[in-house]
Amino acid sequence: MTKVRVAVAGASGYAGGEVLRLLLGHPGVEIGALTAGSNAGESLGALQPHLVPLADRVLEPTTADVLDGHDVVFLGLPHGQSGALAEELTARNADVVVIDCGADFRLDDADTWQRFYGSDHAGTWPYGLPELPGQRDALRGSKRVAVPGCYPTISTLTIAPAVAAGVVTSDVVVVAASGTSGAGKAAKPHLLGSEVMGSVSAYGVGGVHRHTPEITQNLGRLTDADVTVSFTPLLVPMPRGILATVSAPLSGPLSAEDAHAVYAKAYADEPFVHVLPAGQWPQTQSVTGSNAVHLQVTVDEAAGRLVAVGVVDNLAKGTGGAAVQCMNLALGLDETTGLTTVGVAP
Amino acid sequence: MTKVRVAVAGASGYAGGEVLRLLLGHPGVEIGALTAGSNAGESLGALQPHLVPLADRVLEPTTADVLDGHDVVFLGLPHGQSGALAEELTARNADVVVIDCGADFRLDDADTWQRFYGSDHAGTWPYGLPELPGQRDALRGSKRVAVPGCYPTISTLTIAPAVAAGVVTSDVVVVAASGTSGAGKAAKPHLLGSEVMGSVSAYGVGGVHRHTPEITQNLGRLTDADVTVSFTPLLVPMPRGILATVSAPLSGPLSAEDAHAVYAKAYADEPFVHVLPAGQWPQTQSVTGSNAVHLQVTVDEAAGRLVAVGVVDNLAKGTGGAAVQCMNLALGLDETTGLTTVGVAP
Amino acid sequence: MTKVRVAVAGASGYAGGEVLRLLLGHPGVEIGALTAGSNAGESLGALQPHLVPLADRVLEPTTADVLDGHDVVFLGLPHGQSGALAEELTARNADVVVIDCGADFRLDDADTWQRFYGSDHAGTWPYGLPELPGQRDALRGSKRVAVPGCYPTISTLTIAPAVAAGVVTSDVVVVAASGTSGAGKAAKPHLLGSEVMGSVSAYGVGGVHRHTPEITQNLGRLTDADVTVSFTPLLVPMPRGILATVSAPLSGPLSAEDAHAVYAKAYADEPFVHVLPAGQWPQTQSVTGSNAVHLQVTVDEAAGRLVAVGVVDNLAKGTGGAAVQCMNLALGLDETTGLTTVGVAP
Amino acid sequence: MTKVRVAVAGASGYAGGEVLRLLLGHPGVEIGALTAGSNAGESLGALQPHLVPLADRVLEPTTADVLDGHDVVFLGLPHGQSGALAEELTARNADVVVIDCGADFRLDDADTWQRFYGSDHAGTWPYGLPELPGQRDALRGSKRVAVPGCYPTISTLTIAPAVAAGVVTSDVVVVAASGTSGAGKAAKPHLLGSEVMGSVSAYGVGGVHRHTPEITQNLGRLTDADVTVSFTPLLVPMPRGILATVSAPLSGPLSAEDAHAVYAKAYADEPFVHVLPAGQWPQTQSVTGSNAVHLQVTVDEAAGRLVAVGVVDNLAKGTGGAAVQCMNLALGLDETTGLTTVGVAP
Repeated sequence: MTKVRVAVAGASGYAGGEVLRLLLGHPGVEIGALTAGSNAGESLGALQPHLVPLADRVLEPTTADVLDGHDVVFLGLPHGQSGALAEELTARNADVVVIDCGADFRLDDADTWQRFYGSDHAGTWPYGLPELPGQRDALRGSKRVAVPGCYPTISTLTIAPAVAAGVVTSDVVVVAASGTSGAGKAAKPHLLGSEVMGSVSAYGVGGVHRHTPEITQNLGRLTDADVTVSFTPLLVPMPRGILATVSAPLSGPLSAEDAHAVYAKAYADEPFVHVLPAGQWPQTQSVTGSNAVHLQVTVDEAAGRLVAVGVVDNLAKGTGGAAVQCMNLALGLDETTGLTTVGVAP
Repeated sequence: MTKVRVAVAGASGYAGGEVLRLLLGHPGVEIGALTAGSNAGESLGALQPHLVPLADRVLEPTTADVLDGHDVVFLGLPHGQSGALAEELTARNADVVVIDCGADFRLDDADTWQRFYGSDHAGTWPYGLPELPGQRDALRGSKRVAVPGCYPTISTLTIAPAVAAGVVTSDVVVVAASGTSGAGKAAKPHLLGSEVMGSVSAYGVGGVHRHTPEITQNLGRLTDADVTVSFTPLLVPMPRGILATVSAPLSGPLSAEDAHAVYAKAYADEPFVHVLPAGQWPQTQSVTGSNAVHLQVTVDEAAGRLVAVGVVDNLAKGTGGAAVQCMNLALGLDETTGLTTVGVAP
Repeated sequence: MTKVRVAVAGASGYAGGEVLRLLLGHPGVEIGALTAGSNAGESLGALQPHLVPLADRVLEPTTADVLDGHDVVFLGLPHGQSGALAEELTARNADVVVIDCGADFRLDDADTWQRFYGSDHAGTWPYGLPELPGQRDALRGSKRVAVPGCYPTISTLTIAPAVAAGVVTSDVVVVAASGTSGAGKAAKPHLLGSEVMGSVSAYGVGGVHRHTPEITQNLGRLTDADVTVSFTPLLVPMPRGILATVSAPLSGPLSAEDAHAVYAKAYADEPFVHVLPAGQWPQTQSVTGSNAVHLQVTVDEAAGRLVAVGVVDNLAKGTGGAAVQCMNLALGLDETTGLTTVGVAP
Repeated sequence: MTKVRVAVAGASGYAGGEVLRLLLGHPGVEIGALTAGSNAGESLGALQPHLVPLADRVLEPTTADVLDGHDVVFLGLPHGQSGALAEELTARNADVVVIDCGADFRLDDADTWQRFYGSDHAGTWPYGLPELPGQRDALRGSKRVAVPGCYPTISTLTIAPAVAAGVVTSDVVVVAASGTSGAGKAAKPHLLGSEVMGSVSAYGVGGVHRHTPEITQNLGRLTDADVTVSFTPLLVPMPRGILATVSAPLSGPLSAEDAHAVYAKAYADEPFVHVLPAGQWPQTQSVTGSNAVHLQVTVDEAAGRLVAVGVVDNLAKGTGGAAVQCMNLALGLDETTGLTTVGVAP
């Protein structure tokens, strides 16, 4: 096929690096400009030594001039920078596809954005979670995609079938344990290896984490019920992966078998979502580097709650893989091109 | 002081090794017989190389003959073996203190025991969690102690003040992330380093983990309300430590400040429980090797839930440290002798 | 292209799992029989949950009947079982390609085999390290391949250019730090996560590790000098990867620049060996899941030694990737088909 | 006993934190001023949450005014700051004991210092490795101590008996794998958890690491032979611990048994050095948090080299424990007060 020309802004970060890792295995793209902020001028090989075929590439500054002339531009930028850049790019080329790995365009509600991010709301782009009912069609041929946050991706997919089927209608409790790459590559003392190895910690507790309203928004699209979300993120000692434990009171009697059937049916046709056989519980290692989501669900009869567990690679399906999946949809390619359900384990 | 003579049955396992590690720093004890099952006849130095002063000790078989003649006997045995052995020891010496690190004598209810452990109920001994209201007095001078499970210790302490104060009265949800030593030293494929490093997994989901009824029993002692417990354990890639996230619906309006005050008051006089300053969240590394428990609590207003987080070293305060703490109480020593709140970090 | 039909014996182990992971991304193969020893009868999904497309496959017993009818058979079996099975397969189909991931056919010398493995020598097959001078031709079209050990692969590639160029001629010292998957999936107490996390240990010290004679044999093919090898393996807390530090006395004056030039020239045409720019040192994370080898070299003037460092993924290029690379050569395919130099990092 | 009043400068770093952790268990000291550079004004509890008894302490600036009035002052400062401060403290109190955890006063030779550290040589203080022949006496009653570097401590102790006995006289090769805390608490991208977990890397290769001349100096004190040292440090994914593999050509025939006897004799009276029984190899986990050093040695007959392996906790016996051990000697206390050979494992 004719190759699509792709640029990546923010190529020295974890999101940009993962997009590039996946694009290097994608048969339909040619990798064009690679840009960075403070790392502009450095070689990619020094910053992302795992991307051997691009080792000699030198990072350019993130400007519309540099990013112009590509069919697709992936953005891995700090909050607030994607909107103006996307407009500039479209002004030069009305057909350019812009896929934003940042948060700027994920939320519908301007007040919520303002409360959680403290700046003006930039707008809303098609939300890049094709597994949500109706969402795949919204992404096909789109010129704009807002890639979901990693926690919202797995939290939503883990409870969505139960919410959509009405077997849970309230009080969703999410505790999600994430590897450290979700916090990015900026050097902060609490993210040092010495601090995180041998340690689990909680942060953003009590509904204050920015991914909370995104999860709530996703579940709200599935039901008329007023579903609240209590979200607690944990940092665990591994580089990649999220395991989300999601539970909610059952709206009525339901057996574990029936709960499993609800999930199996909901995801029967999804190429990347794998509902495990009953009794087998997910582990993050199984999805490392892949676009797969593994899920399991049961019923806690004594507590009266449905309990589901899901895993995802926060950088792959949680960010870069979703970005490539959405690019495929936007360009009319097979949705799975360049992606895999096969993880790197052990 | 005159030294108390102490024996440890199950000295080659993780619980026995931790009891010994702590006893080696206890000024009031002399370490006597060390016994094992299949490892009898081997040197302790080969099996527990960190216990240098005991490296030349040879493990003896676990029999009443070998364990006789000690003032205190710690038991780290498979389920079902503690009861008969304790009776034999007492028949020979009515004053012997027996401290069981196993599960046999933790539960009050025989049917619950039968359902979760599948064998006959052996009985109930004083429960070794002095921080529960009234429990310290029950342990002073006792000849028997049932050391709590590691998950019940931290799950209980993390939500107990809220239950006791009546600010939560129902639907407790616990997700607890544990290091691998909680699963013991028996070699099983899913506990191999290759399998657990870089991976978080869920197990025992849906109320089937044996620690569930123990948590429920503990909370039931604090309230007349019918508090259910949904408990999900996670395995995380570190050797030691548990972080429990515990939440429940608020029974009425409560600010985060008031929630913190409830906790600060409840534990004001506890030597090992440290309620962190508001805004600082626990991490397991801080308590490694120590008898400390670190707690924090807040209110998720949008979700209407109180959310508390606690950490403990599963082998120390979660098992061996609690055992030594209870020995101190049983013998009338200062409760903190040989124990510390200072963790080994980073 | 017409697909080659491939079977994997030992599909439940780490070597077999890695071969399958790579074959699932190989455009020229169709995956046939999957066999196991004690795990026969179980589903692959329960044992290798990362191999989603094969989750429903049931493992068959490892017999010639089951393995017959394939173009290529990969063997990941205990020592001593490969020879007879390969003969049986060839008796039924003279064209079958057998690729042995075990040690049986790696060594030339029967006495050395006997001394290190304690059983009769089975013979010698073409050695699957195409990067050794002349070796690639020996593998093209071969019906038999002995895949090298993981330590010999990286130890050899890290010092081979210096030995072949004569800049070192004696006293090679190798210290190689390996992730735990190199020890296999059999459950042994010292390989438990609790034991290996937070710990580095040495084993097989003093020339007794079975990979020592394999390294010595490889270097002996490159020089007439009598090069001794002191090899010390270390176990480090990660699932995958080996970093080898290899040094030897310089046979004459040599600058660091010239040492680097020797390496750059030696590997200039190798698709998987990447000599890093001067000053950048290898890290195992960069090659995780890939077939890449990263190398760097310098001169320690005060000590008079050349010091080189190499990294490899022990399961990929160290085992399963080499196996697939050799299959490509054996079948006359492009050597890099289904393989990548791009690692999964961070 | 009357308590000694102790101050710690650099209390927010890893060295200072470890000194404090150990002092909290020392019966003979009272902890006075705690100072810091950029962290002055913050509470210790926020920066070192594992030091619960000191959680409410506020860090003061590092000045002679603040540090005056103490019997002992521990310094954990950037290079070049210890000398002037020590002089100021002595001018105010001639009896003050200053124990420097930094590198300023470790090296004898001014040119070597200049070459490796790039600044003027400050001088030489008694070297805090009491296990070196004659060194214990030099430390008794000393008012100044230069605590050794962590790599030099374990590298020296691992080969010293062989050098002192003359069984090796040349070409010492050290490869030492260290946990990440050795690199300190300053936030640098390559030390992020995401970068170090699942990865081993080499750095400072080729004799350029600053600890190289310190090791060479130590060995030079044990022999008249001209022993060179090739030193390669590795970073491994754990917070604490170093394992050093040290080998050298044998100067004459020597059996493994005789090598072991040389080590056993050399360290027979050392309270913290534990030569393991023949055949048992060290692991870093066994010494975590302790002042113990575990050693093993053998002979590689084919390679003609003696190979020894040693482990230490880089922060404990490698820094803070050595500092306390030397304080004990300086003050005339029992050398082992407040220290232990018992590690925290698993």
